[in-house]
Amino acid sequence: MTSLVCDIGGTNTRFGLVEEDALVPESLRSFGNDGYAGFEPVLAAYLAEAGIGRVEACCVALAGIATPVGAELTNRDWMISRDSIQSLTGAAAIGFLNDFEALGFALLGIDRLEVLPLFASRAGQPAEGTRLVLGAGTGFNAAACFAPRFGHLPHVAAAECGHTTLAIQGDEELSLQRKLSTGRGRASVERALSGNGLREIHEWVCEKNGRPAGRSASEIAALAVEGSDEDCVEAAAMFLRLLGRVAGDLALTYLPAGGIYLSGGVCRALAPLMRSSPTFRNAFVAKGRMTDFMEGFAVSVLLDDRAALGGCVEWLKASRAAT
Amino acid sequence: MTSLVCDIGGTNTRFGLVEEDALVPESLRSFGNDGYAGFEPVLAAYLAEAGIGRVEACCVALAGIATPVGAELTNRDWMISRDSIQSLTGAAAIGFLNDFEALGFALLGIDRLEVLPLFASRAGQPAEGTRLVLGAGTGFNAAACFAPRFGHLPHVAAAECGHTTLAIQGDEELSLQRKLSTGRGRASVERALSGNGLREIHEWVCEKNGRPAGRSASEIAALAVEGSDEDCVEAAAMFLRLLGRVAGDLALTYLPAGGIYLSGGVCRALAPLMRSSPTFRNAFVAKGRMTDFMEGFAVSVLLDDRAALGGCVEWLKASRAAT
Repeated sequence: MTSLVCDIGGTNTRFGLVEEDALVPESLRSFGNDGYAGFEPVLAAYLAEAGIGRVEACCVALAGIATPVGAELTNRDWMISRDSIQSLTGAAAIGFLNDFEALGFALLGIDRLEVLPLFASRAGQPAEGTRLVLGAGTGFNAAACFAPRFGHLPHVAAAECGHTTLAIQGDEELSLQRKLSTGRGRASVERALSGNGLREIHEWVCEKNGRPAGRSASEIAALAVEGSDEDCVEAAAMFLRLLGRVAGDLALTYLPAGGIYLSGGVCRALAPLMRSSPTFRNAFVAKGRMTDFMEGFAVSVLLDDRAALGGCVEWLKASRAAT
Repeated sequence: MTSLVCDIGGTNTRFGLVEEDALVPESLRSFGNDGYAGFEPVLAAYLAEAGIGRVEACCVALAGIATPVGAELTNRDWMISRDSIQSLTGAAAIGFLNDFEALGFALLGIDRLEVLPLFASRAGQPAEGTRLVLGAGTGFNAAACFAPRFGHLPHVAAAECGHTTLAIQGDEELSLQRKLSTGRGRASVERALSGNGLREIHEWVCEKNGRPAGRSASEIAALAVEGSDEDCVEAAAMFLRLLGRVAGDLALTYLPAGGIYLSGGVCRALAPLMRSSPTFRNAFVAKGRMTDFMEGFAVSVLLDDRAALGGCVEWLKASRAAT
């Protein structure tokens, strides 16, 4: 029987049907969230378009905090509840994952994902090693897919890493921390490492250099990659220094011998700079007497747009195997 | 048949025998490391004293980085290898855990551990929720015992959190970061959150206040708890502010709905201040719009001296169940 997977992002909601543990390619659709008053209407629209009235199970990934009974979106005023999904789809099993947790499940099937290797580990990655996905887009977060112990299955762990404290070093970064904290009392990782964060870092650079700001995150990233605008280059360098440091700290936390995968629009946009400039790499390994240890981690960029939906498929498999 | 568990700390090495999945109380012994040239002689001394020539399996917890074939101690020049343990004990299965990973395994049997509750969660802790142990003693680290998913078994995850970047905020802490970074290029969490860290924080306070320093960590903690020395009170307050912040960041990382357990000599020594002063608690919950979310975590102090050995017993059980 057919199941449903869904990925509710800040801008679009993607849907797909699952048959025999695989996404049905022709069932994939994306809807612009702005055209809908809530999640129920967009779900109803997809079900009507797909011509499907009932599914066996449903897994929803979303940019927000997921609980067993539903979820709150971070950037949109939509209610996502088990009850409303059940009444629209008849699904017996319904799962909610945060968007990174879904990517964590997607790492179970890493061989099927499109990735761009940035740097390899010294020793090569153990195929069964713990894998970590982290990234910056609308927000920042991470999720781990822990290598099995004692012959158990791998364990996927959700997190809310974007809300942890941004670890700054030295006077220059203190001035950035001050800017990012204005009106907020503190600066979380996400205040710097997100699209909006890149925009605020660029503002800070422009203020410092006495020039006007006012560019979007995607403009800043594009101009930095081109190398055609000094302020954008400087803003991207600061972003990559902080991203490298935070990624290194998360590597020390999760010990992902099986590799680190960077996701999210900002990471993808800045990927060329992570290869051409040493800024990200240097900040990643700069862990004092642990620097040598840090060389043991491989880092790639996750390019796959459907990875979160693929993670929902993995969740459905695991959930069915358990019942 | 009998198995062996061992906990190699910076100062002492503890041993115990395990029969029918439980520590044999009268088999527990502690040896001062300074009296021995390496791990093999101390192990041989214990085996002779216990009058045992052969064990079924062995699990060793140690303050260092554990690998499948052995381990390196952080603060002592001892080689710990699978081969030497095998030749002395004949053990067929040998496991190495870092000291916090052993505590993470001990959390599997939380009901058997002696704990001091500091504050409860708003909602009460789910018995099966993810648990987190973190703490400051000779060094700093953490380990999670993840709640089972899909009916699997709980998953214990090791970490090297002490080497992550110390997240400072504002000018005053920048000056502390500068002191802790001197000669090291950076300040890790462990540079502040350890016995030596408390000593350096106290030095920084004394320099600021124009008074002589030169106290040991245990003196500083004792005088701060008594409230009888201004510099020690100020040093402990800074330590607890940083500890609260780091514990809050780790809570956002691991989402330990089942509770947070603080371990290590410095945390135990400062526990009275964590109850009597709001400093630790305030820093723990100070996560901007996530402050309300933070109230959902319960925090206790782990008092049990044998917890790491208990974790080794849990490892032996899990390992035997897998074969």
